[in-house]
Amino acid sequence: PGKKVLIVYAHQEPKSFNGSLLKIAVEELTKQGCSVTVSDLYAMQFEPRATRNDIVGHLHNSEAFNYGVETWEAYKRGGLSKDLVQEQKKVQEADLLIFQFPLFWFSMPAILKGWMDRVLVQGFAYDLSKAYDGGLLQDKLSLFSFTTGGGQEFYSKEGISGDIRYVLWPMQHGIMHFCGVKVLEPHICYAPEHASEEKRKEMLTAWTQRLKTLWKEEPIDCSPEWYFK
Amino acid sequence: PGKKVLIVYAHQEPKSFNGSLLKIAVEELTKQGCSVTVSDLYAMQFEPRATRNDIVGHLHNSEAFNYGVETWEAYKRGGLSKDLVQEQKKVQEADLLIFQFPLFWFSMPAILKGWMDRVLVQGFAYDLSKAYDGGLLQDKLSLFSFTTGGGQEFYSKEGISGDIRYVLWPMQHGIMHFCGVKVLEPHICYAPEHASEEKRKEMLTAWTQRLKTLWKEEPIDCSPEWYFK
Repeated sequence: PGKKVLIVYAHQEPKSFNGSLLKIAVEELTKQGCSVTVSDLYAMQFEPRATRNDIVGHLHNSEAFNYGVETWEAYKRGGLSKDLVQEQKKVQEADLLIFQFPLFWFSMPAILKGWMDRVLVQGFAYDLSKAYDGGLLQDKLSLFSFTTGGGQEFYSKEGISGDIRYVLWPMQHGIMHFCGVKVLEPHICYAPEHASEEKRKEMLTAWTQRLKTLWKEEPIDCSPEWYFK
Repeated sequence: PGKKVLIVYAHQEPKSFNGSLLKIAVEELTKQGCSVTVSDLYAMQFEPRATRNDIVGHLHNSEAFNYGVETWEAYKRGGLSKDLVQEQKKVQEADLLIFQFPLFWFSMPAILKGWMDRVLVQGFAYDLSKAYDGGLLQDKLSLFSFTTGGGQEFYSKEGISGDIRYVLWPMQHGIMHFCGVKVLEPHICYAPEHASEEKRKEMLTAWTQRLKTLWKEEPIDCSPEWYFK
């Protein structure tokens, strides 16, 4: 109660299974007394491309454009574009970040990757020697909630698609842990498009149930052992 | 000689180190008698977002938008948007795909992820039970060539960022191998921004040298053992 949650949501269709998972999270967390904000990336037509447009006014070095340097400098002087400032404000205020999306090619859809690329700039999310446990987004939790196209049988150490944890490494460790954000167990719904109506309902109920006790969960140990042991 | 190469390039600045690597590849491969095509994604203002705009004309199911289903159906009836058809044609003709980019957050920049999400649709790149060694893009090679921000010392099994091969799994295995494309050893330039001018020149020369004997290389064994052994 009183906790702030930002849900970054990347699906085009409200009637999709991802849309249902989003709706459940908003309802259940609101019922608990949390304050919930949703960044609905497709609806916002969120820009995924990292370009010069992200910097308002003059460039630090207009001779050769370096996105990392320019956004870092722009952040320091308050010169990032308005859409980025708004997203950073939401992140800053949140106690928990939930990412809700369909797995696309063993990773996030490009629109969500663009959110990571553009919002989590140096100075805001990390800095020189302020990364991983020293990252700048301390005292926050994150949770990756996603659906897959393939069934769970493909995602095992022996399966053709490998352990599902392999695909979590870049997202959970490489992004969230890098910024100092703690990581809760991911929430994975396997192949809802090929599941029976009954199985789909079970998956939705499981998400509701998990959210009820979410705040009692301990973060995972976000180290190579968790992913590759 | 006579081989066709598509370079998918994702950097905003021609004067960047990535720009130099691109230039070297174009020059060296052209010199060998290869036909080289470049998709310069930022210059093309390539759209990374997977939306309804990718389908020309009517939807298969306009009640609930499903990107995977809609692009599959549109592919079959020749109804994908023009920018996708152009990229697919380039892929179809290529013997070798080179991806040249700076590593962003343990992965590709969003604009390049969007190229994967939108171009490699079902029916074109894979199909029902036509994936991995049976993927539809047979007899092609791929090569991921990228720069990192952090130094090589961070990217080891014991390093805080883990073995660099961990981040290659989603890109090489999850995308290229899934589509039936064979994978050459990646080409990684560590932290060129923090390297001396001499070291940078060495890295550029190494790329030229590698390209000279590229067609004699054997693909890697793109299995979990290569990545996580």
